[in-house]
Amino acid sequence: MKNLNILGAQNSLFNEFISEVRSAEVQVDSMRFRRNLERIGEIFAYEISKNMAYAEQEVVTPLGIANIPRLQEKPVLATILRAGLPLHQGMLNYFDHADNAFISAFRKYYKDGTFEIQIDYLSSPDLDEKTLILCDPMLATGQSLALAYEELMSKGDPLHTHIVSVIASRQGLDYVMSKLPTDSCTFWIGAVDEELTAHSYIVPGLGDAGDLAYGIKE
Amino acid sequence: MKNLNILGAQNSLFNEFISEVRSAEVQVDSMRFRRNLERIGEIFAYEISKNMAYAEQEVVTPLGIANIPRLQEKPVLATILRAGLPLHQGMLNYFDHADNAFISAFRKYYKDGTFEIQIDYLSSPDLDEKTLILCDPMLATGQSLALAYEELMSKGDPLHTHIVSVIASRQGLDYVMSKLPTDSCTFWIGAVDEELTAHSYIVPGLGDAGDLAYGIKE
Amino acid sequence: MKNLNILGAQNSLFNEFISEVRSAEVQVDSMRFRRNLERIGEIFAYEISKNMAYAEQEVVTPLGIANIPRLQEKPVLATILRAGLPLHQGMLNYFDHADNAFISAFRKYYKDGTFEIQIDYLSSPDLDEKTLILCDPMLATGQSLALAYEELMSKGDPLHTHIVSVIASRQGLDYVMSKLPTDSCTFWIGAVDEELTAHSYIVPGLGDAGDLAYGIKE
Amino acid sequence: MKNLNILGAQNSLFNEFISEVRSAEVQVDSMRFRRNLERIGEIFAYEISKNMAYAEQEVVTPLGIANIPRLQEKPVLATILRAGLPLHQGMLNYFDHADNAFISAFRKYYKDGTFEIQIDYLSSPDLDEKTLILCDPMLATGQSLALAYEELMSKGDPLHTHIVSVIASRQGLDYVMSKLPTDSCTFWIGAVDEELTAHSYIVPGLGDAGDLAYGIKE
Repeated sequence: MKNLNILGAQNSLFNEFISEVRSAEVQVDSMRFRRNLERIGEIFAYEISKNMAYAEQEVVTPLGIANIPRLQEKPVLATILRAGLPLHQGMLNYFDHADNAFISAFRKYYKDGTFEIQIDYLSSPDLDEKTLILCDPMLATGQSLALAYEELMSKGDPLHTHIVSVIASRQGLDYVMSKLPTDSCTFWIGAVDEELTAHSYIVPGLGDAGDLAYGIKE
Repeated sequence: MKNLNILGAQNSLFNEFISEVRSAEVQVDSMRFRRNLERIGEIFAYEISKNMAYAEQEVVTPLGIANIPRLQEKPVLATILRAGLPLHQGMLNYFDHADNAFISAFRKYYKDGTFEIQIDYLSSPDLDEKTLILCDPMLATGQSLALAYEELMSKGDPLHTHIVSVIASRQGLDYVMSKLPTDSCTFWIGAVDEELTAHSYIVPGLGDAGDLAYGIKE
Repeated sequence: MKNLNILGAQNSLFNEFISEVRSAEVQVDSMRFRRNLERIGEIFAYEISKNMAYAEQEVVTPLGIANIPRLQEKPVLATILRAGLPLHQGMLNYFDHADNAFISAFRKYYKDGTFEIQIDYLSSPDLDEKTLILCDPMLATGQSLALAYEELMSKGDPLHTHIVSVIASRQGLDYVMSKLPTDSCTFWIGAVDEELTAHSYIVPGLGDAGDLAYGIKE
Repeated sequence: MKNLNILGAQNSLFNEFISEVRSAEVQVDSMRFRRNLERIGEIFAYEISKNMAYAEQEVVTPLGIANIPRLQEKPVLATILRAGLPLHQGMLNYFDHADNAFISAFRKYYKDGTFEIQIDYLSSPDLDEKTLILCDPMLATGQSLALAYEELMSKGDPLHTHIVSVIASRQGLDYVMSKLPTDSCTFWIGAVDEELTAHSYIVPGLGDAGDLAYGIKE
């Protein structure tokens, strides 16, 4: 298992869904936007699952017995609200027996226009000895992801953590890869974009994933 | 439009889904549990939509023009985390162009075992002149719903609010109907149960909707 | 239960989905077109279910026992290929324990341009004493529906049959209502259009439902 | 691209879904059975898509322009009724812009208990120069698949054909690989089972996929 996996580097349907979530023209249909994030989440789940632990088990069919390698663990699917919900739904579509964690981070703005990320909501099971999959559609500065990871670690010591993001800025990806323990974390990214604006928007990116999925918030 | 609508009072498939979310035997399949809450949310959305404002519009088909009464408003779908997410998803499946709000309320416990509900996360659009649909799967004491409603009112003054809950205790329903303005709120309940335990569980109820959908949290 | 139910006559979200399947502009997205037919099928299923037989049953919850009116029958969902598949999927989304029947009818054209409908495929369970729900998105001349009904009757004698169609021509609806036994059949129509062209297209209608859902066939 | 790809040979979530469709215990939930075939279809679609033709295209985002390798073809998704429908739905979930073909084959039984496969329904677009994906959940003797392929060839000359089956008997797989042109056909199989009974059931297999998805037919 490589430490960093860029799914969009391989030609596949995955890039069709990436194209559609990026496209300003396609984004006007918020149901399709959410559905594309779900499909992206399903494919991430499937590719990550290739790196998990399996053991052969007997399955009783109506006509006999089949020996099939079964998943030996039930991962915890964690996501950052609210933008992460459709991506999380996609993961849950495939890991349908998983436990789940939800985190909310917000940008606390100061008068000078700078901001700090703070966590205001966390719901999580015990993470000890678990495989944790933490997803956030956009990895801009990487600060909210790093903070969410840190907060989750208060809930236990996972065996391994998979970090999932649809679009990452180069700078944000570098940041989280330097902050998180690379021996126990694997990074799964859809596409890496080169530019991050002064207001922390990824360029070309896709805009604000939360607004596109759920509407503008006040 | 009646002020209080108990959907389970009419025989329909709705009660099949209610039966399944209540059944301890069926609940072991968390994917089906979530799917049932989604289907319940879809039916609530459809029944509520019968009371919204419509106006005839021309729709251009490949062969002519049809005049069809179209919905004149885009509601805001609000839900309480995390248990409300599958119900909210069902509403969004039908009101797919809607805007959305998410709220988290938690029980702050005191040493003597009593608790107080507090809000720690709110993401909402401007609610002025909007139709608001606020859903929470379980209406136990009714305190978190009443508090969520109050918090949402800081975001504007909706034209009308629909309160949706799958299972309500008699006591909790009485509480919210006494707290919320009945001229601008309509209540949509799946079933009303008579008992509320000292620990604020609805009996027979269905157990903890959040745990059944997303796993036990620490 | 009325013998003829026009769902579009009541204002609701149902007409939003009808508007979208009719709209030439929205139809270019075939995934949304299929999804709209599914949602229409779900609403038909729900409305039809209000007229089926229920009996109170005990459901054991984690905390007690609830008495809930449960559906006393498992309907058979029949559809006409290929255009009927998304509508059928919607019905199956709600009647998820149902049995199913599939029929294919085709137009056999003669040199003079006239045609005759023939059945070339039928897969069905025994229909004796069952509630049959037969759906076809478009009821143009009504000939294929009448023929499909007749063919299905070779599989047994249903207790009751619900005929479902999204858009019917006035002429086609009159035809099937005159051909089918009105004491054992109930008709559920989304909208009734006045015109039927010489080539048996409904106007304004929506075009060819099969082509819009699955692409042009040779 | 290898000529024969056994997806179950690699550990992944794919085998979880295979285990569930095989399991007599899990099969009692026909909604889950259909959903598992859908998920299997989605993964087949994704893996097949890695072998299709792509070319970089500009996608305009709200903030810039992204260059993304886009799929250069719209495949035709063909399936054999009725058992193939959930698998086909899964493929269509991912190739949502695809065109579609439906075929029905039946076993015509003779007095001595032997049978012959015949085609009674075919709906297909022109297949010239297209990528064809033909799916059938069970590949038992392989006769219906070979016949369906032959029938489809009357609709044009595809560039390439992908044959997809969830569970194949060794004998059936050998048969279709000997009958179909291996230079223009690629085979995608979930699992290969060793035994085929005298009544053409795969052992251990999963039983009758059509009955499990849609109920017993007469």
